[in-house]
Amino acid sequence: MSFNTFGHMFRVTTFGESHGVAIGCVVDGCPSRIPLSAADIQRDLDRRRPGQSKFVTQRREPDEVRILSGTFIDPASGAEVTLGTPIALVIDNVDARSKDYDAIAETYRPGHADYTYDVKYGLRDPRGSGRASARETAARVAAGAVARKILPGMKVRGALVQMGEIEVDRKEWDWDEVARNPFFCPDAKAAKKMEDYLDGIRKKGSSIGAVIEVIAEGVPPGLGSPIYGKLDAELAGALMGINAVKGVEIGAGFGAALLSGEENADEMRMSNDGKPKFLSNHAGGILGGLSTGAPLVARFAVKPTSSILTPRKTVDRYGRETEVSTKGRHDPCVGIRAVPIGEAMVACVVADQYLRHRGQIGEPVDWPFIKA
Amino acid sequence: MSFNTFGHMFRVTTFGESHGVAIGCVVDGCPSRIPLSAADIQRDLDRRRPGQSKFVTQRREPDEVRILSGTFIDPASGAEVTLGTPIALVIDNVDARSKDYDAIAETYRPGHADYTYDVKYGLRDPRGSGRASARETAARVAAGAVARKILPGMKVRGALVQMGEIEVDRKEWDWDEVARNPFFCPDAKAAKKMEDYLDGIRKKGSSIGAVIEVIAEGVPPGLGSPIYGKLDAELAGALMGINAVKGVEIGAGFGAALLSGEENADEMRMSNDGKPKFLSNHAGGILGGLSTGAPLVARFAVKPTSSILTPRKTVDRYGRETEVSTKGRHDPCVGIRAVPIGEAMVACVVADQYLRHRGQIGEPVDWPFIKA
Amino acid sequence: MSFNTFGHMFRVTTFGESHGVAIGCVVDGCPSRIPLSAADIQRDLDRRRPGQSKFVTQRREPDEVRILSGTFIDPASGAEVTLGTPIALVIDNVDARSKDYDAIAETYRPGHADYTYDVKYGLRDPRGSGRASARETAARVAAGAVARKILPGMKVRGALVQMGEIEVDRKEWDWDEVARNPFFCPDAKAAKKMEDYLDGIRKKGSSIGAVIEVIAEGVPPGLGSPIYGKLDAELAGALMGINAVKGVEIGAGFGAALLSGEENADEMRMSNDGKPKFLSNHAGGILGGLSTGAPLVARFAVKPTSSILTPRKTVDRYGRETEVSTKGRHDPCVGIRAVPIGEAMVACVVADQYLRHRGQIGEPVDWPFIKA
Amino acid sequence: MSFNTFGHMFRVTTFGESHGVAIGCVVDGCPSRIPLSAADIQRDLDRRRPGQSKFVTQRREPDEVRILSGTFIDPASGAEVTLGTPIALVIDNVDARSKDYDAIAETYRPGHADYTYDVKYGLRDPRGSGRASARETAARVAAGAVARKILPGMKVRGALVQMGEIEVDRKEWDWDEVARNPFFCPDAKAAKKMEDYLDGIRKKGSSIGAVIEVIAEGVPPGLGSPIYGKLDAELAGALMGINAVKGVEIGAGFGAALLSGEENADEMRMSNDGKPKFLSNHAGGILGGLSTGAPLVARFAVKPTSSILTPRKTVDRYGRETEVSTKGRHDPCVGIRAVPIGEAMVACVVADQYLRHRGQIGEPVDWPFIKA
Repeated sequence: MSFNTFGHMFRVTTFGESHGVAIGCVVDGCPSRIPLSAADIQRDLDRRRPGQSKFVTQRREPDEVRILSGTFIDPASGAEVTLGTPIALVIDNVDARSKDYDAIAETYRPGHADYTYDVKYGLRDPRGSGRASARETAARVAAGAVARKILPGMKVRGALVQMGEIEVDRKEWDWDEVARNPFFCPDAKAAKKMEDYLDGIRKKGSSIGAVIEVIAEGVPPGLGSPIYGKLDAELAGALMGINAVKGVEIGAGFGAALLSGEENADEMRMSNDGKPKFLSNHAGGILGGLSTGAPLVARFAVKPTSSILTPRKTVDRYGRETEVSTKGRHDPCVGIRAVPIGEAMVACVVADQYLRHRGQIGEPVDWPFIKA
Repeated sequence: MSFNTFGHMFRVTTFGESHGVAIGCVVDGCPSRIPLSAADIQRDLDRRRPGQSKFVTQRREPDEVRILSGTFIDPASGAEVTLGTPIALVIDNVDARSKDYDAIAETYRPGHADYTYDVKYGLRDPRGSGRASARETAARVAAGAVARKILPGMKVRGALVQMGEIEVDRKEWDWDEVARNPFFCPDAKAAKKMEDYLDGIRKKGSSIGAVIEVIAEGVPPGLGSPIYGKLDAELAGALMGINAVKGVEIGAGFGAALLSGEENADEMRMSNDGKPKFLSNHAGGILGGLSTGAPLVARFAVKPTSSILTPRKTVDRYGRETEVSTKGRHDPCVGIRAVPIGEAMVACVVADQYLRHRGQIGEPVDWPFIKA
Repeated sequence: MSFNTFGHMFRVTTFGESHGVAIGCVVDGCPSRIPLSAADIQRDLDRRRPGQSKFVTQRREPDEVRILSGTFIDPASGAEVTLGTPIALVIDNVDARSKDYDAIAETYRPGHADYTYDVKYGLRDPRGSGRASARETAARVAAGAVARKILPGMKVRGALVQMGEIEVDRKEWDWDEVARNPFFCPDAKAAKKMEDYLDGIRKKGSSIGAVIEVIAEGVPPGLGSPIYGKLDAELAGALMGINAVKGVEIGAGFGAALLSGEENADEMRMSNDGKPKFLSNHAGGILGGLSTGAPLVARFAVKPTSSILTPRKTVDRYGRETEVSTKGRHDPCVGIRAVPIGEAMVACVVADQYLRHRGQIGEPVDWPFIKA
Repeated sequence: MSFNTFGHMFRVTTFGESHGVAIGCVVDGCPSRIPLSAADIQRDLDRRRPGQSKFVTQRREPDEVRILSGTFIDPASGAEVTLGTPIALVIDNVDARSKDYDAIAETYRPGHADYTYDVKYGLRDPRGSGRASARETAARVAAGAVARKILPGMKVRGALVQMGEIEVDRKEWDWDEVARNPFFCPDAKAAKKMEDYLDGIRKKGSSIGAVIEVIAEGVPPGLGSPIYGKLDAELAGALMGINAVKGVEIGAGFGAALLSGEENADEMRMSNDGKPKFLSNHAGGILGGLSTGAPLVARFAVKPTSSILTPRKTVDRYGRETEVSTKGRHDPCVGIRAVPIGEAMVACVVADQYLRHRGQIGEPVDWPFIKA
């Protein structure tokens, strides 16, 4: 039952409310003897951490991760490595201003999970949206940092490719640029435009949506578990499950509806290393639910932050009609911080599929076939 | 491990190769005493069945389903009902022309799963694409017919809303029209255009993509299993796992990237029946991974059929460069027959979430709260 | 959710009522390219088949298995091999005398599942006990035949070691004897005694319990998935889940309660092949939930058949007190046919654990350590 | 994949090494609005806590549990209740004398998991046996304390019924006595004998095995998930998975092998409350894998502690033959502290089955049938 557990062989169980004692996760099924320290995880967490620019929530959380279990000093190498046992990671909640939320404890903010949590569970923790807070995703990023180490040679990178009306120019794509602006934007010029654009939105107390692209390189062909554990199906589920995501595409995505079979077919040739290669990648690296060896390409759309200053019509838990506006500390574009989260989810999916493939079939091969 | 099993409480395990002895599924976890006969399932299968117009594959499969287990005549009512035990459904493969596939037994068709299956498993059944065939989806439709009966009052309907450049006009939407044209198109005028459009594509031996929309009404609020079993996450996984699907959206979908927080927020008011209602449905019926009570709205993009007459560059299993074109019987737009399949997957997801909700919480409620 | 599915990587889903159309199973997660034909499976089914001596039920079921999917002729070898896709196996029900069961359709036989199925599901299929029939175990044996092929070198054998008061003399143990008598008894003298003993019981229309022992050799050290997927925990669950089983032991079992730490400890020495060996096997081949490399030794107790001629007090589904005796065709000692079933379950558990180990860690090793 | 996760709807994931930072668990799938505080859990932990008499390990662990997430003050009642979100429980490791274990870091103690962990994972945490320590069971007891609250009216109690040669006299059974002696023994006279008996064993640095019985009352009929999630199968797996357990019985258990069908059948009559009752309970409250409504009766055998003073032959991780004796702080009879652990596992199994039943079928009923 996947309530709060993600994955089959590489399994992540997260816990925690936004303003509770702590959030965290247990990573189970990780192979043993993989070098892993808190610093490895902290690096990724720091990319997602709030309070780093005026364009993200001003909540000041150090997001310092502690490893409670599952690692040990390898007597052979002297390095901290995984034991093959569950890795428990905990991040304390420090800067929780719960009183900000008194006003909405009984009122349902449109676009938020207030009403649905109340109607499902019969109560909810309203402080910082409780379990429905984007804060939960810190635990995903922590787990993703472990996942990145499972499949040798895999590299997962993400970028914001659209914010409202502003799209990146793919000819300007520079991965190094991603770390240089507060938007994870790979196009320096677009990033410049986003700065003014988002500042205007922020000052109005409004918000805007975004599109993120995540690319995984170094994924060998053949990963995926047809029929219902297809690689693309699991990527779609993993990315749609991130807070505020409303759409997911693989490769050509919705654009594929406009393509003819001739345009869409990624033709094949032999590369110099004796392995097949694809001359295009409309498939986004996946055919029949299995990786092709080409880069995995996934995109997801993030809706605008629902916490806005303009009052909106709503009801409260007593069935009274009222209005609500949200005054807490929020991101004017939650899509920005979704970049490392998207990377983490892709890393978790691929790590899990790799271990499942190895279980059923053995180590993946690049080219197992008889030479003519 | 979800290789060929879908769902947690309502579990569907499918089996079968396109040209093997039979395909089918085992539906496990179904509540007992639900009226169910082969005729109930046949109705849905007949909507997906090939050979019904010139716009779909000419393979003539009766797709007749047999129930091997899991039902019994209720001594109380005299009706055939579920026993609560596994329901095994089998559909024999009848019109399998396997020799059509000799040419591609060793050659990888671009856009198909030939290469990825071979590289994963070390061999494949090339006849009709074996397990990777869209024929597998008949088993999904059969399971979906059972799923439709689980949640009282739920109604799941789908329609083709785009074929290549032709989009339906939502003002012309008529659910009754869906059954009247060979495209499951809800707009009679658009359907007329599609007829000529697709005929041209078919005659060229080409193919085209499409977009399908599925709407589920009568889903009570609160269904969904956060954090990793969110309703939207599972819908996305279920729909992306259908053959040839490359994108999935919920509600506003990718359009949400362009919206402001004010535009996106679905405001709430009390309806006359004393329950909350939403004044719009950008959320597509899901907030925080839980159903809101508004209709679930999901869309998915289907790529063009990869089986086309125009030769494409490829390689074979010996690493030789070659070309391939596909001569078998194929759909010029696989998106058409994806409509009942999309409905089936949505029905399975909701049925499963309903049973999981009932397990954790009890029967869903509409409005459990204290009246002011 | 494990309703009718067993295993994680090597997954078996069974279906079927005793007097329905058919019983069978879907084996999912099996590695590809493993030689497998219906004849391989039939061999094991024939050992469990009813009607082979006067000591088992006289129902005449050919128990002929058909493979519906998941195998193909390997173009490389010309042999029928697994595809890595679901293997659907079906066994038709042929000799079903359903009218024998009219008398008990509304009356609960003590020791049977009649009452519990009715109270759980609100109805049941009374013909041959429906899903609760030992007939379901034919599907387990079929799946076990596949499982036996997963781990190279593994050999799983079982024997009946006690019937009522008659125990085998372990000094007389001869594996070849097991196939020579109708009791799967490894001790020829004990088998002779059982013949008269059971004939007396059979003629009285009574029944008797038994104890079965299953031994798996060739299991490499390190298999098992602590903490909750321990090898012994899963063996216990698998064996206790066989119809009529009331107790399970590993190694010294309940006898361990009487041992001191000194007696119980299996001391270790290096064997000539450079690997550790154990000087005794109180552990039954499992320590800390992981295999030690010594033979796995499991025993299980089977209660006497509940279908007996002597009338017993009971109630019916209307709450009326009554008496019942059972006239159908039954085994006077169900323990006998439990031998191949126990073997099958052990084979399934080990196959599954092997694949899970390979997924998390890689191929098992015998002795990975630094030489001094 | 059940590495460190137990259960399907009520899911427990534990983590932690004996001498690491902390141990703990995440309980997922718990219904919302169930009163739960740390004190509720502490009560059960205190029963299992070490250092409470000279008959258990002298490690002084306060075993103080903290709730990190998943509970909240219900605005309606003012009580701390569950949110329906994951409940993370942490117990810090305080009194860890890791240097005691230097001697055995490279040497395999017979009867311990040292060798099997090393051969599986390629390394292990030798301090206090790391993950294989009985300390992990504190997390089970914590989870069990939550599980006890799920099914209204369920009462789970355990007792030590045999220590080496000393068995309790069932005629002397007094549940109140269990809390009065350090052995959880229900027979005051037997407890007195055990005192001298175990003291002798303890002084020799030896150890002894034991048998525990756990009884669950108030379990409604019909709980269980046939075929592979039978109630008895899951109890057997849950109890066999406790450290040092080598055998599990339900009801008559291995004694059933000696019974005739007449003796074993639990006859039925109507009780005064209009529901069926059983005149005996050889079934231990389970028929066909489903609860009968009679008390669940399970027994399990615990082997003697493997940590003993007498040197035993063994090998080290370099393949050198050597001897080892264990000097750390250990229980001379680990069976004693297994009593609350057994109770916890039974409570977890029943809670999980109850939620699964409710999911598939709805609330359990006692007597759903037509009155004559």
